[in-house]
Amino acid sequence: MTSYKLLLLPGDGIGPEVMAEVEKVVAWLGKAGLATFETETDLVGGAAIDVHGKPLADATLAKADAADAILLGAVGGPKWTGVAYENRPEAGLLRLRKELGLFANLRPAICYPALASASALKPELVEGLDMMIVRELTGGVYFGEPKEITTLPDGSKRAVDTQVYTTAEIERIAHVAFDLARKRSGRVASAEKNNVMKTGVLWKEVVTRVHQEHYAEVELEHVLADNCAMQLVRRPKQFDVLVTDNLFGDVLSDVAAMLTGSLGMLPSASLGAIDAKGTRKALYEPVHGSAPDIAGKGFANPIAMIGSLAMCLRYSFGLGDAADQLDAAITRTLASGARTRDIASKGGKVISTAEMGDAILREL
Amino acid sequence: MTSYKLLLLPGDGIGPEVMAEVEKVVAWLGKAGLATFETETDLVGGAAIDVHGKPLADATLAKADAADAILLGAVGGPKWTGVAYENRPEAGLLRLRKELGLFANLRPAICYPALASASALKPELVEGLDMMIVRELTGGVYFGEPKEITTLPDGSKRAVDTQVYTTAEIERIAHVAFDLARKRSGRVASAEKNNVMKTGVLWKEVVTRVHQEHYAEVELEHVLADNCAMQLVRRPKQFDVLVTDNLFGDVLSDVAAMLTGSLGMLPSASLGAIDAKGTRKALYEPVHGSAPDIAGKGFANPIAMIGSLAMCLRYSFGLGDAADQLDAAITRTLASGARTRDIASKGGKVISTAEMGDAILREL
Ligand SMILES: CC(C)[C@H](C(=O)O)[C@@H](O)C(=O)O
Ligand SMILES: CC(C)[C@H](C(=O)O)[C@@H](O)C(=O)O
Repeated sequence: MTSYKLLLLPGDGIGPEVMAEVEKVVAWLGKAGLATFETETDLVGGAAIDVHGKPLADATLAKADAADAILLGAVGGPKWTGVAYENRPEAGLLRLRKELGLFANLRPAICYPALASASALKPELVEGLDMMIVRELTGGVYFGEPKEITTLPDGSKRAVDTQVYTTAEIERIAHVAFDLARKRSGRVASAEKNNVMKTGVLWKEVVTRVHQEHYAEVELEHVLADNCAMQLVRRPKQFDVLVTDNLFGDVLSDVAAMLTGSLGMLPSASLGAIDAKGTRKALYEPVHGSAPDIAGKGFANPIAMIGSLAMCLRYSFGLGDAADQLDAAITRTLASGARTRDIASKGGKVISTAEMGDAILREL
Repeated sequence: MTSYKLLLLPGDGIGPEVMAEVEKVVAWLGKAGLATFETETDLVGGAAIDVHGKPLADATLAKADAADAILLGAVGGPKWTGVAYENRPEAGLLRLRKELGLFANLRPAICYPALASASALKPELVEGLDMMIVRELTGGVYFGEPKEITTLPDGSKRAVDTQVYTTAEIERIAHVAFDLARKRSGRVASAEKNNVMKTGVLWKEVVTRVHQEHYAEVELEHVLADNCAMQLVRRPKQFDVLVTDNLFGDVLSDVAAMLTGSLGMLPSASLGAIDAKGTRKALYEPVHGSAPDIAGKGFANPIAMIGSLAMCLRYSFGLGDAADQLDAAITRTLASGARTRDIASKGGKVISTAEMGDAILREL
């Protein structure tokens, strides 16, 4: 059996706690003969700043580049508020995304039946919700230049960020979205602000052309990003695959995640281009952040992190069966009533991060 | 009694229908001796394109500049999809905002008690919601240069938008937010992405300084825009005044408006700087759009447009009493059960745009 090289980057806050549960599952996969992994653990974000003075050491980047896949916990926290912009914890994650070319961020927003009542929305609006946000991850305002603060003659300041998109960048993310739609419900919504932004104009134009030339059987709808945010709240189930740029994707995917009532349970995949050998770089991480306020307390829900491993099995290694087993174990664990603090009903029994990990292992 | 010059720009879609109801109220205010207006009506958006070939004629801009206040319906619709970017309907509205220096966009998100059940959120999360989004309106990615699409040597394209903010721009919008907070609950949340954007870094820095120097008694909280979108869905009542930039304000204010279940009822004010005479340019418009799909059918809810007139009385003319009367008449009309289609409960009685206007007049 092939052995896969997995780089674990727990990061900050609750990252290490939830990653510990993933390690248990990785060990189980090996013992069960489903997949063997060579794992290595390294630092990213604030944890790396504390040791190396920067949020991603070159040696770590080299390991990430050599790995078959990366699992990342979360980065950031108040401890590093004073750190220079260039060296803030988030810069480590952004550098990983950019240097490895992880341009396609897949963020499923799934409402687990057992948790529909945890949503802020009325249950009938979210029950059965299963959408996929495809966010462009290496372009747009996150990386465009100039990106700077200059001092004006009168001593006041002027800050600039630049959003850039090229035809090629939009084409490749559009292909990812349409390919996914083919395997799902056959519907794509594309969100931009073409009424205000030139990048929106080009986005709409390129997505429209890719659709016409290659995916005529998929249904395509264009929606303005502000209206899209509204529609997500009003009637989320109208969407299946939603493709959008880096910044709108950041906001819209957070809204979608929150709608499901399962924020602590949602994984994500960040994928690179498929190379000549048919492989692609990939990083998997929970949608939730580092939650420094609850770090170290055993409150964190490890399901998003374990679900990220399931996505990794599926997308990086073609181990759909193992991924299915893992997803099914999560569903059964939830059905059995196991609840970490974030998803517990009022007064209901609460278990710890490690107990949730163990409960999932028992179901496996 | 002073007579105020009011420019009415009904615009496109349902704009003319809802503006017709405002005209009835304006006439009533005169007869009741509460305020006299000289009104003039002109074209904006698609309606102006059809006549002048551009979405805001220079003569209309001159009238807007000379008016004491402007009421605008809505702009845009599929009819003008093919129009060149520079001449699209939205460009008329953006030119008005920019040329008149309307930098402060106030968007109340209020959940009318009679309508809490119309929200997608659970009623207990939105009942009593009364927040104010203060959106910067003449800066950011809407107006920064370069804003262009260029053709690359290989024939593919590159689109650029530029987000620019200066200290002065952030200072003046921060003052608007803090001044408002003083009259409200004394709390301001400021949303940006300082972890990714330099404009976010400057935004946070300037808002923090304005707070320390002038408004120490107001409570200030910084929140990342993506998390803010989440928090709006999760627990909207945690916010009172929310200040943010043009683009995040566009998205976040739409989310907030949708939460209230009262989208067809929310007015907004776009204000300029206060000049030496103590007056300021101002434009009032509903938060909702032109809704071309229901235009001309008498389905539109005129309350957002009439509420925009109430905001105008209050902010532009210091006629707080008349504004209160108008707001109270709207509340009573709703309490009496009058419902346009957008806010009707399933199977409930529905009245037309004009009938809603008349019902409010009867309550006045
Ligand atoms: C941590 C931060 C830089 C990041 C982003 O803005 O992309 C996060 O919000 C995300 O969505 O992954
Ligand atoms: C019509 C459009 C240009 C406008 C905007 O994006 O500002 C609208 O969405 C708004 O919020 O007023």
